[in-house]
Amino acid sequence: MNQQKRILSGMRPTGRLHLGNLHGALENWISLQSQYDCFFFVADWHAFTSDYAAPGDIRRNSWEMVLDWLAAGLDPKQSTLFVQSELKQHAELYLLLGMITPLAWLERNPTYKEQQLQLQAKDLSTYGFLGYPVLQAADIIIYRANGVPVGKDQLPHIELTREIARRFNHLYECEVFPVPDALLTEVPVLPGTDGRKMSKSYGNCIFITEPEEDIRRKVLQMMTDPARKRRTDPGDPEVCPVFAYHKLYSSQEEVAEAAHGCRTAGIGCVDCKGILIRNLLKRLGPIRERRLQLERNVEEVRAGLKDGIERARKESSATMERVLEAVGLSGSFV
Amino acid sequence: MNQQKRILSGMRPTGRLHLGNLHGALENWISLQSQYDCFFFVADWHAFTSDYAAPGDIRRNSWEMVLDWLAAGLDPKQSTLFVQSELKQHAELYLLLGMITPLAWLERNPTYKEQQLQLQAKDLSTYGFLGYPVLQAADIIIYRANGVPVGKDQLPHIELTREIARRFNHLYECEVFPVPDALLTEVPVLPGTDGRKMSKSYGNCIFITEPEEDIRRKVLQMMTDPARKRRTDPGDPEVCPVFAYHKLYSSQEEVAEAAHGCRTAGIGCVDCKGILIRNLLKRLGPIRERRLQLERNVEEVRAGLKDGIERARKESSATMERVLEAVGLSGSFV
Ligand code: SF4
Ligand code: SF4
Repeated sequence: MNQQKRILSGMRPTGRLHLGNLHGALENWISLQSQYDCFFFVADWHAFTSDYAAPGDIRRNSWEMVLDWLAAGLDPKQSTLFVQSELKQHAELYLLLGMITPLAWLERNPTYKEQQLQLQAKDLSTYGFLGYPVLQAADIIIYRANGVPVGKDQLPHIELTREIARRFNHLYECEVFPVPDALLTEVPVLPGTDGRKMSKSYGNCIFITEPEEDIRRKVLQMMTDPARKRRTDPGDPEVCPVFAYHKLYSSQEEVAEAAHGCRTAGIGCVDCKGILIRNLLKRLGPIRERRLQLERNVEEVRAGLKDGIERARKESSATMERVLEAVGLSGSFV
Repeated sequence: MNQQKRILSGMRPTGRLHLGNLHGALENWISLQSQYDCFFFVADWHAFTSDYAAPGDIRRNSWEMVLDWLAAGLDPKQSTLFVQSELKQHAELYLLLGMITPLAWLERNPTYKEQQLQLQAKDLSTYGFLGYPVLQAADIIIYRANGVPVGKDQLPHIELTREIARRFNHLYECEVFPVPDALLTEVPVLPGTDGRKMSKSYGNCIFITEPEEDIRRKVLQMMTDPARKRRTDPGDPEVCPVFAYHKLYSSQEEVAEAAHGCRTAGIGCVDCKGILIRNLLKRLGPIRERRLQLERNVEEVRAGLKDGIERARKESSATMERVLEAVGLSGSFV
């Protein structure tokens, strides 16, 4: 275990996970946990950066998300699973790193202005929103992580984390922080049932532990190629969300058959969806069952989290001791 | 005690205190401690906002400062004396308050641009420097303080603290934070031995526990009215630093005699300084003696601080419980 490289990643507590979350991050985490010493955490403080005005029930959302993590296959025995707000050390390091982080580094962060534009309904001209890459840097380097799995859009944040780690080591002439690498991950983009990005705010999600009848209904109501108005019209699978799902859940032959049948009007959308429904249920069934099991064994979930929080505390406290020594605040004052 | 209003104030750990510190803040603190429930703290994290690149020996400077506090008359039995960096709760509240603090409030802070100009040698365009009023707000309201003794120049910071407290109460529909009042304090301005502002970086300080012979030497070398070149020239006491000291340390008659003698060339500068030296030694003697006593009883000092830190921890933890409840992060997750 100790010989393995350590990686770290977090997810904001959004409650029950949907298929976009599963394929966008969770599946990748699950495959990473056998290769690395993994730290995965509920980024509940981060939820406040954009949702401070209406944070919702963060504790409940965190709990739902963790249940889904375990249901999908994260293993608290293999990975360290924890909740950010339980580790006050992150806040202490955020405070100290903020002191050495030039404002210009944060202001030039491309996602900063972008997100402000995207989320104009929320007032994001806050100190915390500007500084969330500093908090993210603290989250990562407090565990002395070697790698961070990210999508392309998050590369600038990892670059910032690397710069902050280097600056700390340089200013205090130490080697406290390894400079973490980005583990670039290609993630399949899975549209929502209406063809837009899958998002709770659009109401177009399929959840990973959704009951069978709901999955059936949602797929049957799912948008298809809008140009295919009648059964006898040929369609274009590449513009059809159903086909995007086939590529993830159906066998190669089924995908080929759906594509051909669609283009030649040899298959109707209802039948095409029927094949998807069968495959989707096959894939999600075990996750849903495991989730029901976990709901009957919350003590097991709690124990796994408790364990993870303790490991995270041990690791982050050890790093903070080195940090405080480096900056001259080591040892208790009294 | 609980019926008393609570006040809070902090001082950056600059090591041994000089007469400017004594009259600028410490004397005021000492007089406040019998009237209020006082929390006084070593603002060691704040030292990083401007001195992150060369923080010096913060622990040693903190210790020296606390010894001087006690030597001058702060009483750990009467007041709660503590060290900021021992209370991680401040960092947690700083993090959360940052999320709700509009950047514009910080950018319009008049001392922000001002200090950047004044301290151009240090690069203060950092995230932490911009946010130090947020940390200051956390320091104050985490103890639910009712009042903060400040000089006029700090009024904008207290106004910011008040706005942040109000905004939190408003956003989370609670009454967690009392809105603290500024206790405006007139402080006599005491020049350094060269007539400029007393400051360690100018090398013009008289320290409150300075040995007698050093005080004597420093006063004898002190700048006087530069127009009074010869003993027979009349002088202007209002432009003479020595006279500024007389006003603080000498009796009304002595002050009047010095002024008259100076204007009429009836007294020489050496004699005028001799009177000051006598009075200064009388005033500082007991402080120096008490300091020597404390150095022989460091365990007593440690015990007083330990006590203060525990009281501060109890109070700040209780506030944080209410904060976490208000924002929806209350109760341990596991
Ligand atoms: S046949 Fe299948 S791929 Fe083609 S439009 Fe219908 S649902 Fe989509
Ligand atoms: S007589 Fe006293 S007040 Fe006048 S210039 Fe000399 S030292 Fe200053």
